[in-house]
Amino acid sequence: MITVTRLDCADARVMIEGARAKADEIGVPMCIAITDEGGNLIAFERMDGGKVTSSIIAIDKSFTASGAKKATHEYGAASQPGAPAYGIASAIGGRLMVVGGGLPVFVNGDCVGGIGVSSGTPAQDTEVAQAGVDAVLATL
Amino acid sequence: MITVTRLDCADARVMIEGARAKADEIGVPMCIAITDEGGNLIAFERMDGGKVTSSIIAIDKSFTASGAKKATHEYGAASQPGAPAYGIASAIGGRLMVVGGGLPVFVNGDCVGGIGVSSGTPAQDTEVAQAGVDAVLATL
Amino acid sequence: MITVTRLDCADARVMIEGARAKADEIGVPMCIAITDEGGNLIAFERMDGGKVTSSIIAIDKSFTASGAKKATHEYGAASQPGAPAYGIASAIGGRLMVVGGGLPVFVNGDCVGGIGVSSGTPAQDTEVAQAGVDAVLATL
Amino acid sequence: MITVTRLDCADARVMIEGARAKADEIGVPMCIAITDEGGNLIAFERMDGGKVTSSIIAIDKSFTASGAKKATHEYGAASQPGAPAYGIASAIGGRLMVVGGGLPVFVNGDCVGGIGVSSGTPAQDTEVAQAGVDAVLATL
Repeated sequence: MITVTRLDCADARVMIEGARAKADEIGVPMCIAITDEGGNLIAFERMDGGKVTSSIIAIDKSFTASGAKKATHEYGAASQPGAPAYGIASAIGGRLMVVGGGLPVFVNGDCVGGIGVSSGTPAQDTEVAQAGVDAVLATL
Repeated sequence: MITVTRLDCADARVMIEGARAKADEIGVPMCIAITDEGGNLIAFERMDGGKVTSSIIAIDKSFTASGAKKATHEYGAASQPGAPAYGIASAIGGRLMVVGGGLPVFVNGDCVGGIGVSSGTPAQDTEVAQAGVDAVLATL
Repeated sequence: MITVTRLDCADARVMIEGARAKADEIGVPMCIAITDEGGNLIAFERMDGGKVTSSIIAIDKSFTASGAKKATHEYGAASQPGAPAYGIASAIGGRLMVVGGGLPVFVNGDCVGGIGVSSGTPAQDTEVAQAGVDAVLATL
Repeated sequence: MITVTRLDCADARVMIEGARAKADEIGVPMCIAITDEGGNLIAFERMDGGKVTSSIIAIDKSFTASGAKKATHEYGAASQPGAPAYGIASAIGGRLMVVGGGLPVFVNGDCVGGIGVSSGTPAQDTEVAQAGVDAVLATL
């Protein structure tokens, strides 16, 4: 047996609130998703004005970041034409997201879950996701 | 052009809180999803101990209830062998849910969204979903 | 944060060996899948002569049993025409399996994963799955 | 009628053990999948620490290599922008993998199956896959 530490529902709420505060600050309504380390959804919120298409994108960014223990923008760089992971973007039925906005959450070196944000530019999405990560790390 | 009234993100949070309170009361951790009248996800929460398989089921119950403006258990009755809607359960790639736990929200005769709950028995799921509906109607 | 106990890869191998021994004993080559408590695949084996179609069925039985913390044959009873969960069989894109052969693994009251078996009758599948569960519990 | 030679379940186990030994040697826990010449899964293992997202990727790399009788990195080269197979990465619902880590197994000029590995860099994945191929060829 293995013992695993993961985000709980209260952590997920803290992350959504942290991300939402940043989204309000930069004035971009976002879709925000939180997954556990197994990639399973814990919480989600589409702010008023968030893009309908971004709901699944946010969930899949979080799935990718937590399941692969890696920021989605790292996949973006690694999957450019000519780069080693070129073509990975359509893996897992297209769920593998290589666009910025998905971040894993690490605690004591272990990935405990992730966050995915979508509706803005990838840079804005990543900034808002980082605020969500910072919010939960501040509670530890 | 049409003007549509729908649940906003604040309403969705009220519904999740109302449903969660009822789930705590009956002692069954639930997956709770809220969708708007277009069937698009607004908010979701998997309580600690909620079933992983119930995440998508809750979302699809809410999708069905808000999109079809009908409680999912009504489809359950209508889709029994020999009944008119027999076979509908596998429609939309299986997203059309006929198991109880999905309820539409009506305001002034219009469907403004829905809620889907899963992890307990269909009766428990429906009871918790109703608590979510009641919570938002109490704010009007 | 939550701390979770789950099957590791060595546990999964023990379960496959236990299930395979029973499958050999009853003379039915099986597909055998092991998932963790998040429903994610840890190990799989299709014995020589196991059915090709049973590969995904075994994986989805294990996914269902571990994700829903319930034997798949329990869903079979609950989803008969007229029963409360009628129609659940097509949920999650058809991944929700209501046919016998999927069992959760409980340790100290917590679901730590599951096993799914397919290629025989549902009764044979369940018997082989139980042998897999027994094998890992015997190591604790 | 045609007589086909293919990997059996014992071969698959040898390949997984060979791949796992190499993965341990380079210190990268991997997802390892073995398919027969029909592209159907024979065996799978996610080592402790292997990426959840890599489970399906490993299976699909093996599916691609055995079904197309070609290493997945060859598709990577052939599918670059401007190259003849550009766009193939999203074929078969995204199952056609063009990222390195999938290798076919040839015996006497015939493809008898394949192996897919994922969780490391494409170069690491390919190295581990090659160790799996070497392991089974050494038994002939």
